[in-house]
Amino acid sequence: MMAVFSYESLHQLALEVFVSIGCPEEQALTAADALLSADLRGVDSHGVARLSGYVRLWENGRVNPRPQIRIVHETPSTAVVDGDSGLGLVVAPFAMGVAIQKAATAGTGWVSTCNSNHYGIAGYHAMRALAHDMIGLSMTNASPLVAPTFSIERLLGTNPIAVAIPAGAEPPFVADLATTTAANGKLEILQRKGAEAPSGWIQDAEGRGTNDPSATARGGALLPLGGDREHGSHKGYALGAVVDIFSAVLSGANYGPWVPPFVAFLPVAPDLPGKGIGHFFGAMRVDAFRPAADFKANMDQWIRRFRSARPVEGQERVLIPGDPEREMEGIRRSSGIPVVDAVAADLEALARKRGVNFPATMG
Amino acid sequence: MMAVFSYESLHQLALEVFVSIGCPEEQALTAADALLSADLRGVDSHGVARLSGYVRLWENGRVNPRPQIRIVHETPSTAVVDGDSGLGLVVAPFAMGVAIQKAATAGTGWVSTCNSNHYGIAGYHAMRALAHDMIGLSMTNASPLVAPTFSIERLLGTNPIAVAIPAGAEPPFVADLATTTAANGKLEILQRKGAEAPSGWIQDAEGRGTNDPSATARGGALLPLGGDREHGSHKGYALGAVVDIFSAVLSGANYGPWVPPFVAFLPVAPDLPGKGIGHFFGAMRVDAFRPAADFKANMDQWIRRFRSARPVEGQERVLIPGDPEREMEGIRRSSGIPVVDAVAADLEALARKRGVNFPATMG
Repeated sequence: MMAVFSYESLHQLALEVFVSIGCPEEQALTAADALLSADLRGVDSHGVARLSGYVRLWENGRVNPRPQIRIVHETPSTAVVDGDSGLGLVVAPFAMGVAIQKAATAGTGWVSTCNSNHYGIAGYHAMRALAHDMIGLSMTNASPLVAPTFSIERLLGTNPIAVAIPAGAEPPFVADLATTTAANGKLEILQRKGAEAPSGWIQDAEGRGTNDPSATARGGALLPLGGDREHGSHKGYALGAVVDIFSAVLSGANYGPWVPPFVAFLPVAPDLPGKGIGHFFGAMRVDAFRPAADFKANMDQWIRRFRSARPVEGQERVLIPGDPEREMEGIRRSSGIPVVDAVAADLEALARKRGVNFPATMG
Repeated sequence: MMAVFSYESLHQLALEVFVSIGCPEEQALTAADALLSADLRGVDSHGVARLSGYVRLWENGRVNPRPQIRIVHETPSTAVVDGDSGLGLVVAPFAMGVAIQKAATAGTGWVSTCNSNHYGIAGYHAMRALAHDMIGLSMTNASPLVAPTFSIERLLGTNPIAVAIPAGAEPPFVADLATTTAANGKLEILQRKGAEAPSGWIQDAEGRGTNDPSATARGGALLPLGGDREHGSHKGYALGAVVDIFSAVLSGANYGPWVPPFVAFLPVAPDLPGKGIGHFFGAMRVDAFRPAADFKANMDQWIRRFRSARPVEGQERVLIPGDPEREMEGIRRSSGIPVVDAVAADLEALARKRGVNFPATMG
């Protein structure tokens, strides 16, 4: 039930679709790069599968295809960026670029961003710091799907945190994690399979734990990392809350239950306290702390020690954050990106509607 | 099995003990403030219960009571602080002070710290930013007790993260969380009671989940937040790893399995890659992003919305991070700090050994 496309062909499709809704060529390219990084790294829920969703937001007037993205406040190491309702896939690279520029002169740069939309995978933006010998951070708030510990109501998004750290001879350390037990994409896969969700992932509309992966469609909620109070869900809740506050209260975006939903068919709440959704980015020059060569030598030792740890029975090895995604990227760059039939059909219809070419499958 | 002491009397005891080992009066006061904040906030494992432990480190030559704490490298928004083997309870306030000073001019300040020792509770240091209308961050690495996902070996500490965020009329948001399912202090309580630990907290020496809270004393390990792979332990592992790298690889302290143990009877590993243990601190001026009044008004709305969320059955209310600790502090400032008999006896013996007064209990 899979069609396989080359990275280049799906990238071209996304580029042409973004141009077709009015994005300037350069911004469309930026957006396609960010979007396709998800497919390359194996985060299938955040890549081309969402292309139609972005277009529907534009159709509903919620995405400005030609935003005037600008810095509205700054200090030597900080800025607030207003995304002018642009695609998050365009606004986020601008804001991360500001963080990197600030770090070049002040040692670190921290940029909170309002008036944006969904920005793809958090890790992509954090990783842009690596080429500059900087540590990159990226986080974003998102549609309210998560119930804080003890709450029936959904007040937070899956609010991911990504941290990318350069190493020397070893590949970089790249953590990219939703602050929930499980990402929403994993629930969608279980729903398609008709399989049960593990305990600790979701609760039903009454706030009781459930194994039904479709409970979130009927008033249920995803659970914060930890699952329940006994297993530390108050920690996942606190982390998701920090992401929300750094991304949106610091920038003047919407927060908590007021975050506008990604899906265009859901209404936006009235009396919004801010503008659009919010992101937060950081860049720290490694040599603002220590000579980069010393840092990288220690990172290599760190990575090798953890990777060579004795694994538990049934497991081959201990992974470094970023290992699975990097390995997936290697495979998919050469062997192509598998797309489930439903998504391929959706993309073909989208291409027809937007008057752009739909690519042939590989091989 | 409890004796109750006033905050002031235990603070005086800690102050006199620190002076008795050679700390200058001012540093002893700083250390006593930091140590006792744990008892006030209900984190009993990190307060006066550890006073003997700090003294044993000094007896073993691992704590320098008169450190020359200094900045060894800096940029407008960063610094590395060398703690000169001082008490973490003294080194950390110095380093956090540098972060706050940097933020005053550069918008933010970020300080990685090497050559330190155990610094008490993470939240205390983060909260020092609040009086300056700044967001405070604090993290530290710690003795290796935690097994990364799929690892039999213990390579990380409980590596806490604290974030303190000011509000307006509402009390501040203060998250302070170990990146493990459960803090080590909770296991100690279960061991004393002879009770079982919940699943997902610990594994035995072979890397199999166990409910025996004393398994960590026989080669077992605490588990990262999430507990197992299915419930997101790779996220807790990644967060603990980020804390380790920011605290120690950025500063030149020891990291991973090389972190010197807090307990003086355990040997320090040979061929250490760095100096002492490491911390990381951050301060962000709120008005480096938005006018402080706007930010605080939004934080008040955020806090009120979350606190008024409909609770699940059997729970009275949804908590804001920091609520339980603040309420505990109110009680303990007026009604005193309960100390279990074993700890009180240990403190009385310590007072005798160090030639200082042991306080009377309350009432």
